This record gives sequence, C-alpha cells and structure tokens, in this order.
Amino acid sequence: MQGDSEVNGTNGHHLPVLTMDTVNPRVREMQYAVRGPIVVRATEIEKELKNGTKKPFTKVMKANIGDCHATGQSPNTFLRQVIALCSYPPLLESSEFPKDAKSRARRILGGCRGGSVGSYSASAGVDPIREDIANYISKRDGIPSKAEDVILCTGASDGIKTILSMLMTGKDGKERAGIMIPVPQYPLYSATLTEYNAFQIRYYLNEENNWSLDLDELKRALNSCRGECVPRAICVINPGNPTGQVLTKENIQDVIRFASDNHLMILADEVYQHNIYAKGSAFFSFKKVLTEMGPLYNKVELASFMSASKGYLGECGFRGGYFEVINMLPDVKACLLKSISAKLCPPILGQAVMSVVSNFPTLDEPSGALYAKEKEEVLAGLARKARMVTDLFNSIEGIKCNEVQGAMYSFPRIFLPDKAVEEAKRRGQTPDSFYCFQLLEETGICTVPGSGFGEKEGTYHLRMTILPPEGEIKDVLGLFKEFHTKFIKKYQ
Amino acid sequence: MQGDSEVNGTNGHHLPVLTMDTVNPRVREMQYAVRGPIVVRATEIEKELKNGTKKPFTKVMKANIGDCHATGQSPNTFLRQVIALCSYPPLLESSEFPKDAKSRARRILGGCRGGSVGSYSASAGVDPIREDIANYISKRDGIPSKAEDVILCTGASDGIKTILSMLMTGKDGKERAGIMIPVPQYPLYSATLTEYNAFQIRYYLNEENNWSLDLDELKRALNSCRGECVPRAICVINPGNPTGQVLTKENIQDVIRFASDNHLMILADEVYQHNIYAKGSAFFSFKKVLTEMGPLYNKVELASFMSASKGYLGECGFRGGYFEVINMLPDVKACLLKSISAKLCPPILGQAVMSVVSNFPTLDEPSGALYAKEKEEVLAGLARKARMVTDLFNSIEGIKCNEVQGAMYSFPRIFLPDKAVEEAKRRGQTPDSFYCFQLLEETGICTVPGSGFGEKEGTYHLRMTILPPEGEIKDVLGLFKEFHTKFIKKYQ
Repeated sequence: MQGDSEVNGTNGHHLPVLTMDTVNPRVREMQYAVRGPIVVRATEIEKELKNGTKKPFTKVMKANIGDCHATGQSPNTFLRQVIALCSYPPLLESSEFPKDAKSRARRILGGCRGGSVGSYSASAGVDPIREDIANYISKRDGIPSKAEDVILCTGASDGIKTILSMLMTGKDGKERAGIMIPVPQYPLYSATLTEYNAFQIRYYLNEENNWSLDLDELKRALNSCRGECVPRAICVINPGNPTGQVLTKENIQDVIRFASDNHLMILADEVYQHNIYAKGSAFFSFKKVLTEMGPLYNKVELASFMSASKGYLGECGFRGGYFEVINMLPDVKACLLKSISAKLCPPILGQAVMSVVSNFPTLDEPSGALYAKEKEEVLAGLARKARMVTDLFNSIEGIKCNEVQGAMYSFPRIFLPDKAVEEAKRRGQTPDSFYCFQLLEETGICTVPGSGFGEKEGTYHLRMTILPPEGEIKDVLGLFKEFHTKFIKKYQ
Repeated sequence: MQGDSEVNGTNGHHLPVLTMDTVNPRVREMQYAVRGPIVVRATEIEKELKNGTKKPFTKVMKANIGDCHATGQSPNTFLRQVIALCSYPPLLESSEFPKDAKSRARRILGGCRGGSVGSYSASAGVDPIREDIANYISKRDGIPSKAEDVILCTGASDGIKTILSMLMTGKDGKERAGIMIPVPQYPLYSATLTEYNAFQIRYYLNEENNWSLDLDELKRALNSCRGECVPRAICVINPGNPTGQVLTKENIQDVIRFASDNHLMILADEVYQHNIYAKGSAFFSFKKVLTEMGPLYNKVELASFMSASKGYLGECGFRGGYFEVINMLPDVKACLLKSISAKLCPPILGQAVMSVVSNFPTLDEPSGALYAKEKEEVLAGLARKARMVTDLFNSIEGIKCNEVQGAMYSFPRIFLPDKAVEEAKRRGQTPDSFYCFQLLEETGICTVPGSGFGEKEGTYHLRMTILPPEGEIKDVLGLFKEFHTKFIKKYQ
C-alpha cells in the first residue's frame, strides 16, 4: 500500500495528510486582502473590546468591505416584502402587504417548480427572473437583450470565476492562459487567477489622470508577456474598485478596439453601474458601446457582471448576481451551461433580489413612490459621502485622493516618510500594511492596504469604503487626520 | 501584438476566442449526469406539451433529481416563518407569528452585522448559527462539537469542492492527487475531480451484498493506482447516493482503519443522515465512530458534510449546508478559512435553514408539535415510498432493485437484451442511456442512466428518486412496468 502503516494508526502516531507543505500550493499562495490579516485582527479587537480591554477607542469601524447593511443602511422595504411573501406564501392573503409586492412574489413563485423557493431552479436561473433582467438591460441600453443570454449566479464573484474557468487552457508553462487585469484591482481576480494557475497580465491604471485606462499601457502590458502565456481576455472594472473612477465612452471604445485587435474576450465587471456620483460622469455598458460601434466590433465576446450586493439595495447576504454573455458560440455556451450544472443553482432568494432590482415598482404602482424615495436616499447619501471623503482626505498633508466618481470606495495615496518604510521592512510588512495596522490599533478604523489590490512600485495607498453613516464619517475622518499627523511626525 | 489584427476587427471577420477547441478542456470533459442531456430533453418535452404537441402522456415526471418541493412536498411551516421574520423584521411585531419562531429569528438577526440578513457574514458563517449546529452535532453523537470546527457553505457541493481543492497537489502526471470515490457515486465527485485534473481512484460497491463497502475492494482499488497518483483521501457517501444503502458501524470502522493505515483523509458525505427508512438500519456518523475507536484512530482528518436540501426540510433552493472538520492542523485550517474568504460568505438565509434544522422547536414550545408532525409526515411518507418503489421494481421481470434503506433514490439494475445493447451502440448511446431516453419519450418519466454514476462493466442501471407523491408513484411505476415489458419484447 502507499501509506506507511507503521506510522499511521498501528502504533499510535498519526501524520496528518494536510500540512502546510502538502496542502494545495495554489490555495496556500492565494491572497484575498479584503478579508486578509488586518480584518482578522479587527475581529479580534472587537472581541477584546467586548471583554472590557481598554483601547483608545470604543468601536471598530469596518471600512474594509462594501457591506452596506453592516454599516447602517436599511433594507429596501418593497424588496424585503417580496422576499417575505416568497418565503412564506400564507402572507399573500395578508392585507398588510401591498398589491404590487404580492404580484412580484406571485410572478417569482410561478417560475419556481412546485411553486416553492425551496426547489432548485435551472442552473441558469428562474425563467421569469431571467426575463425581468433581460428587460432591465434592454431598457438600460436601448438595445434588445435576450433572457437566454442572462445567467444567474451566486453573487458576481461566482459568475466571474465561471467565465475565467472557461478561459483556462488547462496547460502549464508557456501555454498558460493569460488574463489582463487592472492594477489596482479587486483581489477576487488575482485570487482566482492564482487558484487557476493562470498568468496575470497586469495593466496599470493612471493615478495621475484620475485612474484612467490608457491604451498605450494596455499595449505595453500585453507586449511584456509575450512568450509567457496565451492572452485570452481582458477584465475591466467600471465603475472602478478600489479606484472609484467612471470610464468615459471613448475610453470604453479604446478597450473594445484593443480587445478585438488582440483576440481577447472582455469581462466587464459592472456591479457598480447604479453607483455613479460625480457630476459629468455617466455609466455606459460595454454591451451598449460595442453594439453601437457596429460591424467591426460588435462580435467581440463579452460577459458583463452585475450583483445584488451593491447598487442601492446592498443585499450582500443574499448572494445574488447575474451575467449577460453575448457573442459566445452556441456550443461553447452549452458547455458553459454544463459547467455550472454541477453547482445545481444559485440561491432562489438571491435571484429574487435581482428580479426586484430589474422589475421595481413604477410610480403608478402602490409601492412606487416609497421605492423611489428609498433608492434616492441611499444614492444621494453615497454621493454626499463620496464628496466628503475625497475632500477630507485631500485636506490632510501627505495624502492625495482622486475624486470618488462612483462605486463605494476611496483609494487615497499615502506619502510615507522613509523611516516608516524602513520600520515596515523591519517588521516584515509592506509599508501600507504597517500604516493600516497602526491605524487600526490606534483608532479602530479598519481599512485595506493598497498592496492588497496592487499598486505602482514605491506608492502606498489604502482602500476605505464611503459607507459609514454620515454622522460618523466626519468623526472617522477626524480620527484619521489626527492619527496621520502623529504617524508622520513620529517617522519624519 | 499577439492577436491577428487582419482577422479580428479590421476587416470585419471575427474569430471567437472561445471555441470547442480552445475552451478549457477540463470544463469540456466534465460531465454531471443528474442535469445531463436527458434532463435537457425532458425540459424540451415539457415545452412541447405546453405548446400542444400530442404525446402518449400529459406530464413529465422529473424523477431525476432529489428536488423535494418540486415534486410536491410542502415547506415546513416553522422554518418558513423564521425565514419570513428574518427577511422582513417588521413582522416581529405581528401577532400572527408564534413566539418561538420570533425568538429564533431574533437570535439569527442578532448574529448578523447591522441586524440584517443583507450583510455579509464571516466566511465560515454567522456565529450563533455555527453554535446551533455544533449543539446539534454534540447531541447527535454524544460527543462535544466546537462551533469553530463548523463551517457553513453554499449547499454541501460547495463544501465538498472546497475540501477537495485543499487536497490537490497542484501537479500533473504521477504527482496528481488521487481521491478514492465509490462507484456508483454522486457525479459531483467525478465532475469536480475532472475539473481539478485529479486522479479518480474508483472503488466498487458490492451490488450483490446490498451495495456494501468491502475492505478488499478498497485495497484492490488503492493498489491498482500505484505510480499513477498520490492518494490523498477517501470519499464515502452514507446513506448512499445513488445506491440508498446505510452503512453499518462495523463497515464504517473498516473504512476508518483503512484510511488511517493508508494515510488518507476522510470525506464523509452525510447529507442524508435524517433519511433512514429500513428496519434495523441506523445512522452512525464517521465522527462518532472514529472518536469511539480511540487513540489509534481518533486523529484521522475528517470532513463531514450536511445540507439544507435533503433531510425532511428539502430546502434545495436556499443553498444551505455546512461541514465539520476535525483533526486538521491549525495552520492548515487557517489556510482553509483563507481559501473560502474570496467567496465572501454563504447565503445568510441558507445558513438560517441550517440553524432551524439544528435548533428546532421542542415539544414544550408553541411550534414544537406542528414541527414534529410535519417532520414525521415527510419521513414516514418517504419510508413508505422507499418500500413501495423497491417492491414494485422487484415485481418486474428483468429488473432487480436492492432495498432503499435510506437517502432518496432507487438504483435498480436493468437486464437488457443483447439486441437493445446493439441498438444503443448503433445510436452512439450507452445501453442505459438508450433505455432511459426511450422511457422518457414514451412515458414522460425522467430518470438518470446508471452510466452517469458509474457502474460495473456490463451492468445497466438507472436512478429514480422516491419523491413523487404517493398517489402518483403507483401510476408512475405502472407506466414503467408497461414500458419495460414492451421494450424487452421489442429487443428480445
């Protein structure tokens, strides 16, 4: 037998199968900074505070993750009514629930086998929900969308991993698949590419020009990986995460031309499409732009991702999302559907969230006015906080923050003194990790070091969400300013 | 540039990035029979019936998948009340909901950040839910379980894929990870191992002895793969899927000794632990058995999987599940937790289902009696149907069916005439696929061919769930008998 029966079992010594030397090396190497060591430490500190340990602060402010409800946003009333009705259909008889919520719930239940959200749906999702989403996309772009191109998933992350998996070449060495990703980027991309053993073709966003996406940089990045991989796709995050920029239509056209010229599929991470704050910024979907570019470009393969977790609903816990895939060959699409079948289906109530955000009550329905009011309140609040955070960071010496045009994050650059950089090295931390850990220990503010997203050599950043309540965000930024001034003084 | 700009974009011709030649070959090769081609055809037939096409039947009976609510089971009242309360907390003020449902909902909401099921939980799950599950396991086994060893997941499939991923060696060729799986097996295992490029070490269950798991066969299987892979783990499904057997305590002890002697981790798929029907059969968890075996064996690394989709709740659409992992080294466990962090968290309401099934109302609580009654009705009905299906199959000449002791499936052996086997070959189908397709076209009964689960060379089976309502199951089996007799006559 393969095993060593003298060591295992028979004489009472047991060698574990899994050790840090024998665990899958790709899992060992994978990093996901948004829930990395600093968040582990923040959770420990929360427990210490609960147990009465004295700290210079009384509360941990988790500004590391775009978790809307955790930072005080209230759930949308209409959405939650629909969810409750779907979960417990006897409520359909209750006069406490509005007619339009009931009709949405009936529509969703009508698409569920046995009329229950407890049955599996098709792997691509519940039919009427796919139709709701296709209608939403059609209206958004003014271009028809087909339900058969819409595939529900367990949060956008799941969809992104599914498409990336299709693109893998299944080979090592020079035949590894190469995927272009922005730097800085949302670390799901780097984590997944590490897990899949793919080559990361990193293109840098231009911080000096408000994190713009420059064509020359795309060319440089692609050229630099010649002979190291087979380039297969380009990922674009718009609005940007962690960088908060909103791409112009011209910039999107550049990317589409580049993808077409270089035989790349486009993965458009458009989960923040409702989160646009800056005057003059507008969301253009890759689908709309490439369709309008006409015959030379409208055959580029595209997957666009959307989520239940962001936007103005912020329902992270439901794990809902979808992607629309266009220009994929029919047999490849059948293969895609097969590849998701072993996962059975995404959570039905997560799908229901996508249904509501696509098919929300209009103003002539009973819940229309309340829905619009709650949506507007969330988005207007985020716009004010985006402005506030940008301005306050820029009022601190040694910090420079591009305008938060969209999404939910600020990504300020922190200019660190050489002595702080040396101290970080001495401790075996990246300079921005060192800074963020100190910030956490002294103020309770939990952020994510820029190194977790990637950044230009010699520059240091952090990502802080703009989600804390308006009443608290000023205090948070006050604490931040105080900490930063002390920190700089200490290491100057 | 890498791309061919003369072909792509500039002259109007576009070569797709993804074709059947360039798509990830592991995805292309992966098969998941439970939602395979026969189910695709069944869905087409449903649409044909809707559009008025005449068929020898009026309804497709989807007996291919363990989808309880789809086949008529009613949701559990208490569970759905808790879900509705969690989803729409204003209902906590309503007098229409019982006190115990409200207290469970408050407990769950108290574990959610911001008191909302719309926020992310820790990747391993909501703390009080992990405690509920640990309490359930402790009571089940009479052995203490720790909440920190319980990890929630998006259905058991997600948990199984997570643990299998940890076991991969990340190498090809002789250094590929080898995983022992039963034949027949639930095809999630083979699909995942194909996706991960792992080696399947297939051990055959003994159909002649009611699908028992024989030690000699485990040894044979492991010996046969020498030099082809690094054996890392053994997967056991108990109660069996698709085979419906329930392992005895002695059989489980054999597996544990074998795993220990051969340096293998155990993956115990125990999602049907509540689904035990046969007199004399009882569920013993691997954890309980290995703990009781004492010092020589109680250090074997074990992951045990459980699901919200099976049991008596059958809430497939919620995508809830958990696994308990014991004897894993602390640094490896930290690596495991890191590996799930990029997925953010399992759906909170799926977690809530696991909370209720672990922490259900007792008889001295207001909902206790109803909960017990609904549970008993579901399980007693399944037990009657297990008996009925076994007996009816065995009443048909040329079909032999082991007793359905547990789980939700019958897996009868079909003795096919040579002419039928030849006809199948002529059509490029496996003989049992041919049989199942004919069954579907002529009766509307959708089953899964045995070849999708693996079977001994020259034997043919199909998997049919025991889920259709009692009123219908007799008719289904009547139709089946009629079809089978005609089929055998035709090919004799």
